[in-house]
Amino acid sequence: MNRTAGTKLPRVVVIGGGFAGVHVVKSIPPGEAEITLIDRQNHHLFQPLLYQVATAALSAVDIAQPIRAIFGDRPNLSVVMAEVTDIDLNAKRVTHTRGQADYDYLVVAAGSQTSYYANPQWEALAPGLKSLDDALRIRRKILTCFEKAETEPDPQRKAELLTMVIVGAGPTGVELAGSLADLSRRVLRKDFDHIDPASAKVILVSSGPRVLETFTEEMSVSAKTQLEQLGVEVWTGVRAEAIDGGTVTVGGRTVRAGIVIWAAGVSANPLGRKLGAETDRGGRVLVKPDLSLPGHPEAFVVGDLAALTDVNGIKVPGVAQAALQMGGHVGRIITHECRVSRDAAEPRPRPGYAYIDKGSMATIGRSAAVAELGRIKLQGWFAWVAWLGVHLLFLVGFRNKASVLLSWAYSYFTYKRGARIITGISGENSAGSA
Amino acid sequence: MNRTAGTKLPRVVVIGGGFAGVHVVKSIPPGEAEITLIDRQNHHLFQPLLYQVATAALSAVDIAQPIRAIFGDRPNLSVVMAEVTDIDLNAKRVTHTRGQADYDYLVVAAGSQTSYYANPQWEALAPGLKSLDDALRIRRKILTCFEKAETEPDPQRKAELLTMVIVGAGPTGVELAGSLADLSRRVLRKDFDHIDPASAKVILVSSGPRVLETFTEEMSVSAKTQLEQLGVEVWTGVRAEAIDGGTVTVGGRTVRAGIVIWAAGVSANPLGRKLGAETDRGGRVLVKPDLSLPGHPEAFVVGDLAALTDVNGIKVPGVAQAALQMGGHVGRIITHECRVSRDAAEPRPRPGYAYIDKGSMATIGRSAAVAELGRIKLQGWFAWVAWLGVHLLFLVGFRNKASVLLSWAYSYFTYKRGARIITGISGENSAGSA
Repeated sequence: MNRTAGTKLPRVVVIGGGFAGVHVVKSIPPGEAEITLIDRQNHHLFQPLLYQVATAALSAVDIAQPIRAIFGDRPNLSVVMAEVTDIDLNAKRVTHTRGQADYDYLVVAAGSQTSYYANPQWEALAPGLKSLDDALRIRRKILTCFEKAETEPDPQRKAELLTMVIVGAGPTGVELAGSLADLSRRVLRKDFDHIDPASAKVILVSSGPRVLETFTEEMSVSAKTQLEQLGVEVWTGVRAEAIDGGTVTVGGRTVRAGIVIWAAGVSANPLGRKLGAETDRGGRVLVKPDLSLPGHPEAFVVGDLAALTDVNGIKVPGVAQAALQMGGHVGRIITHECRVSRDAAEPRPRPGYAYIDKGSMATIGRSAAVAELGRIKLQGWFAWVAWLGVHLLFLVGFRNKASVLLSWAYSYFTYKRGARIITGISGENSAGSA
Repeated sequence: MNRTAGTKLPRVVVIGGGFAGVHVVKSIPPGEAEITLIDRQNHHLFQPLLYQVATAALSAVDIAQPIRAIFGDRPNLSVVMAEVTDIDLNAKRVTHTRGQADYDYLVVAAGSQTSYYANPQWEALAPGLKSLDDALRIRRKILTCFEKAETEPDPQRKAELLTMVIVGAGPTGVELAGSLADLSRRVLRKDFDHIDPASAKVILVSSGPRVLETFTEEMSVSAKTQLEQLGVEVWTGVRAEAIDGGTVTVGGRTVRAGIVIWAAGVSANPLGRKLGAETDRGGRVLVKPDLSLPGHPEAFVVGDLAALTDVNGIKVPGVAQAALQMGGHVGRIITHECRVSRDAAEPRPRPGYAYIDKGSMATIGRSAAVAELGRIKLQGWFAWVAWLGVHLLFLVGFRNKASVLLSWAYSYFTYKRGARIITGISGENSAGSA
C-alpha cells in the first residue's frame, strides 16, 4: 500500500481474541499500525484447560484473561466487544454490532465452534466444550447428576443418572473422560452417603478404531489402556446415531445417561463463508501459502478458521500451536509491509507458512498423560509433569499462573477440587441488558 | 422425647446451609443425632464477600464451599440438594423436591432474600445481591456497561451507561459502592481508549439520613466521607420511587443509568410463613427465647429467618454473627436433650439466647473501612486490615483462604483484578436438565 510520510498509521482489524488473534497483535510493534481487535467475549480463553473447568478442577476465572488486560495500556490498540456481522472485502470494511471498522489489513481469526454435523438439534441436549459458558453448563450438569442420584429411590434411575457419555475421542474427549473418572472415583467418593460415586460409568465413544487418532498408534494404545485403568469404558468404531432427552444411541445400542457431552467435531465459524473464498467441508477457508485470501492480499485468515497444506506439504492441524504460529506469521508480514510502505520501498516476497510440530499431549486423569514430540514419547506420570510445565508456561497472565498452580497443588495433594460449585440453576445468569 | 436404649439416633432436619444451618450441624457431635441438611444450592456461601464477586475482585468459587466438602465424611449426616415445599409440624415431616424427611428436631435456617417491597416487578430490572448467581449477574452487567460505553458514539448515552446507581446504604450498598468506585477509578483506568472509566458516576441512595444506619453516627459520617473521597455521590433521605428499563427515579429525580443495583431490603424466606407462627412485617418468625417455635418446642428457627429480642433486651440483628451464634445455641440445646434422652433423664431448662455483639465492619474501596466494637472505633486503613484478618479467619476451607489471600494480594499490589470475566452472555448458563 502506498502512504506518504506523515500520514496516519495503517489500520489493522483483527477479528477474534483467541490464540491466533492475540498473537497477531503481539507480533506487530505498537508503533507500526493502528489495530482494532474485535471479539464477542471480553476475555481470551485458554481452551486447553476448559475441560478442567467443566469437571470442577479449576474456576472459570483461572483460565481466562480480559483481553484489555493482556495488552495493558498498549498504544494504537482498540479492543471492541462486539459480534462481526459483515465483511466487505472490496470496501475494506468490517461491520459489527457496535459499529464499523475500515482497514488496510484484515486478519480473520474467528476460530471454530462445536459441530453437530447433520443434527444441530442435539446442541440443546449434549453440550459441547468451546467456551466458558459451555464448561460451566457441563459442570452444573455433572454435579447435579450426582446430587439427584443421591436422593433417587429407584436403583435403575440412579444408575442412569450416574452414566456419563462423552462422544468424541480426540484430545478433548479423552481429557474430559479421564478427568470425569478422576472426579467420580477419587474426589467425590467421601461426599455422598446413598451413592458410591466411584460406580459412575464414564463411556467414551470413538467413531474411529482408536482414541487420539491424530497421535501415533503407540500413544493411542497407551491412552486407551490408561483410560481403562481409570475405569473409563472405551467404545471404538461406533457413532452417535440419536440423542434424545436422557438417552444416546451408539452403534445401535441405546444408553440411558445423566449427561451426554459432545466432543465429536468442530466446524469453522460461519464468518468464514462470508469471505467468498473456497472452503473445505468444515467451512474452513482455503488460504494461500502466506495465509492470505486468494485475490485479497491484504486480508488473512489464521487459526482454526484456516485450511491449508503448508509449504512442507503438511496439512496444518486445528491446534493451539498452529494458531499461535499462524498469528505470528501474519503479524510479521504486516509489520514488514507497514515499515516498507513508510519508507516508500517495495516489500519482499511474502514467506509461506511452515507448521512447526511442537508435539502433542493429552492428560488422562490427575497424574497420567501421553505426550509425543517427534520420536520422543512419554507416558504416565512423566508425561503429565511435562504437560503441567508446558501449560503453565503458556497460560497468560501471572495471576492466572499462580492461581492455577495453587488449584492444582491443592487438588493433587488433597484429592479435593475447589471448584465443585453449581451456579446458574435458576436461569438468572441469562443475559441482562445494560 | 422418650427413647429406649438401643433405638436409633434422634433425627434432626436442618433446612438451609448458610451460617446458621452449618453451625447447627457443627455444634452437634456426630454420634448424637442423625442429621439431614437440606439446601437448594450445593454450596455454602460466604455472603460478606459477595460484593467482591459482583465487582470482579474475586471469583465465585473463591467464596463458596460445597456443603458436602465442609463436613467431609462425617457419619450420620445426609446432605440433600432440594427445595423444601412443605413443613408439617404435627406430623413432624418436611417435604422437599427430592422426597420427605421425618424429624424429632427441626431447625429452619432458610435465611432471607432480596425484597423489593411493594414492587416485585423491579427484580428483573435491578438485581439484588444474595447469591452467587446474583453476583455474577451484577458483574456481567457492570463490565458490559463499560464495554458498551467504549463503543458508544453518542456522548449522552455514553454518560448514561457509565452511571451506576446502588439503592440502599447498609453495609451491602456501602461496600458495593466503594468497590465499584475502586474498580472504575483504579482498576479499569488503563483498559479503555474511548472512555475514561474514572468518569463513571457511582450514586449511593439512602432512604434514611445517614449511611450505615446500624453503626454509630461517628462511623456513618466517616463512611460517607471516605465514600465521597472515592468519588461516590451519596444521596440521603430519598427513596427509589420508580425503576424502568434504564432509569431510576429517586426523590422525584429521574436518573438514566447503565445499572441499578438493589441493596435496599431483605425479607424472610417464604418458608417462614408456612410455620403458622406469628411473624414480623418482614416475614421473620417471632421465636421464643430459646429460639423455638411457640407451641412446638422441637422446632427451632434461627438466623435471618428468626425475629427476637434476646434475654438482654437486644433486638437481634440480621447479621452473620447472630446467625452463627443462634445456630450454635440451638445445636447445643439439641445435643443436650439427645444425651439426656439416651439416659432417660430429664433435660435442664433451655437457656435463652443472648446476642454477643462482636462488632461491625464495612469496607470502603480497596484500603479503607469503618469498624467498631463497643467503644473501639477504627477508620481508614487500620479498619481495613482488621476487616481483612477477620474475614480470612471466618472463610471456610483452607483452599478458599489461600486463593482469596492470593487474589487480594495480587489485586492490592497491582491494582488489577483477576476476575474481570464476563460469563453467561448467551443465556447458555440457564438451568439444564440432568
